[in-house]
Amino acid sequence: MATLCRPSVSVPEHVITMEETLELARSRHADHPQLPLALRLIENTGVLTRHIVQPIEETLKHPGFEERNKVYQTEAKARVPAVIQRALDDAELLTKDIDVIIYVSCTGFMMPSLTAWLINEMGFDSTTRQIPIAQLGCAAGGAAINRAHDFCSAYPDANVLIVACEFCSLCYQPTDLGVGSLLSNGLFGDGIAAAVVRGRGGEGIELVRNGSYLIPKTEEWIMYDVRATGFHFLLDKRVPGTMEPLAPALQDLAGQHGWDASDLDFYIIHAGGPRILDDLSKFLQVDPHAFRFSRATLTEYGNIASAVVLDALRRMFDEGGAQHRARGLLAGFGPGITAEMALGHWHSPHEGTA
Amino acid sequence: MATLCRPSVSVPEHVITMEETLELARSRHADHPQLPLALRLIENTGVLTRHIVQPIEETLKHPGFEERNKVYQTEAKARVPAVIQRALDDAELLTKDIDVIIYVSCTGFMMPSLTAWLINEMGFDSTTRQIPIAQLGCAAGGAAINRAHDFCSAYPDANVLIVACEFCSLCYQPTDLGVGSLLSNGLFGDGIAAAVVRGRGGEGIELVRNGSYLIPKTEEWIMYDVRATGFHFLLDKRVPGTMEPLAPALQDLAGQHGWDASDLDFYIIHAGGPRILDDLSKFLQVDPHAFRFSRATLTEYGNIASAVVLDALRRMFDEGGAQHRARGLLAGFGPGITAEMALGHWHSPHEGTA
Repeated sequence: MATLCRPSVSVPEHVITMEETLELARSRHADHPQLPLALRLIENTGVLTRHIVQPIEETLKHPGFEERNKVYQTEAKARVPAVIQRALDDAELLTKDIDVIIYVSCTGFMMPSLTAWLINEMGFDSTTRQIPIAQLGCAAGGAAINRAHDFCSAYPDANVLIVACEFCSLCYQPTDLGVGSLLSNGLFGDGIAAAVVRGRGGEGIELVRNGSYLIPKTEEWIMYDVRATGFHFLLDKRVPGTMEPLAPALQDLAGQHGWDASDLDFYIIHAGGPRILDDLSKFLQVDPHAFRFSRATLTEYGNIASAVVLDALRRMFDEGGAQHRARGLLAGFGPGITAEMALGHWHSPHEGTA
Repeated sequence: MATLCRPSVSVPEHVITMEETLELARSRHADHPQLPLALRLIENTGVLTRHIVQPIEETLKHPGFEERNKVYQTEAKARVPAVIQRALDDAELLTKDIDVIIYVSCTGFMMPSLTAWLINEMGFDSTTRQIPIAQLGCAAGGAAINRAHDFCSAYPDANVLIVACEFCSLCYQPTDLGVGSLLSNGLFGDGIAAAVVRGRGGEGIELVRNGSYLIPKTEEWIMYDVRATGFHFLLDKRVPGTMEPLAPALQDLAGQHGWDASDLDFYIIHAGGPRILDDLSKFLQVDPHAFRFSRATLTEYGNIASAVVLDALRRMFDEGGAQHRARGLLAGFGPGITAEMALGHWHSPHEGTA
């Protein structure tokens, strides 16, 4: 059985607080007719601190798409290997044990993907499969876990390395002045996460079933406008309400496994924003405390896109995990609108049969 | 067993001949010191015609990355569904039978990927998994086949739709004047291909083993320079020589299966350029006639990136396929430098046991 092991997470050293974010919004958009609304929305995110790859003064400049993308590459190369190494160590594996690298990132674009450089730089085997995904946005963390699960189902001895590298601050667009953009400027943060899905052995979430769900006719609700200035993030105001149609999809998946999505032992949910967590709590009738890991990620790091679910899971590990065989749900949400969902048991080898 | 069924292929209506390409190079780069070399390289490609999504006059303009990417979206939406529908018809499946869509394309960038629009537009089930891959370039056709194979190995009743949509002409960069760029301007063409990998049933290549290989320290040999003007394709002059290190990787994969890569019944190879096919013939000691499908794609369509392997396979179907149980090799090559390789048997249900 495929086991999602302890994620390793790193956030950059430059910190911006909510108060600083609000002050920036006030000073830069003093004449904006909807400034009070934007400030209120930012306050409501509950995002108290975010970590970004450059000092805020640099972040606010736009040196051009080319330069931004170069920063992405430089920072990714400087920061990702250590995160991967810790994830490998935690999974008690070496680079040579890895069969696939799934690299998800929507905040920079390289061809070849960083996977090629990583294989060369870190000494992964030349036969390591590369699955780079740039277009699933925040849902890509869940998608990476699910594709890793699928791969281990096909090849039970395989091990898959997942890497999520998101530098959302490099997509800041100073000329985007819609309320959705001002909100995004206070919501997204930077972070890198890595985790191994082991085909055999390991401690963590034993993945037992996964599924995907696309809410019909919402493909324009979260999207990139691709311009000479880079990726411009467009966020429709209907997005925070999407848990109403997605909660039944989570229930369906759980039901297929004979489980009740309202009555599980743990939840690792993409913290896209506060209402995602509030509404999911309501629609699934789950105590908000169950979402404490996701809430902590949102509060301390902001929405770090595809890395959120891995960071929330890391926090669950830090808390000591769960009882052996405890049942849980993991879900990433992103453009499409797409949900990537997984069910699993907590697996502690000391108590289990593995 | 997963079976790669008949690919459906479509190339755009605007045609440019080699003679027109050479004339354009002569007139636009009259003062270029390496023009004679560039002309010779273009002639050596053997690419007699290419099909492009816009008339050549439009193709030669650069209206900006944003406008180019909009053309990509518009043309993809206008052209891809019909290609998919034919692939589904040929596989005798309906949209509701598809579990995964793997969409590969490196010549335009959308988030969400076209997969979301396709699910809505063509009525695929909301639970269809989406695997969009933009960063494997020409190797992505092989990667898509291999990931489809893996998925069907995990879920033997599943069906995977593969779509390769490449409008290389939208990456033409008039200011790129290196010899590699001038050559590329005469090598790449546009095309769309789709095919279904059926978990059960179907006629085509029964996929039995796959593998990936990255040539160490070559990650900068084929790459995109990402700029405000879009993707700038960089082609190192060492790329045509890469079959020497890749032929052993093909032999290794075949050897793992007890096969001899030099002695198979059919070959579906990425026709990156003429030397790829010439050298592979030499290093594998395979009659050049075995690469006639790939050669025909190169001659008639040019290098249509990730769609080449699917078009070459389509030509093999058009020729009547192979004997039941005939053994073959399929390989895509692209940035990394990465080879995505697959082994399979030709499967004719009328003669087989399926």
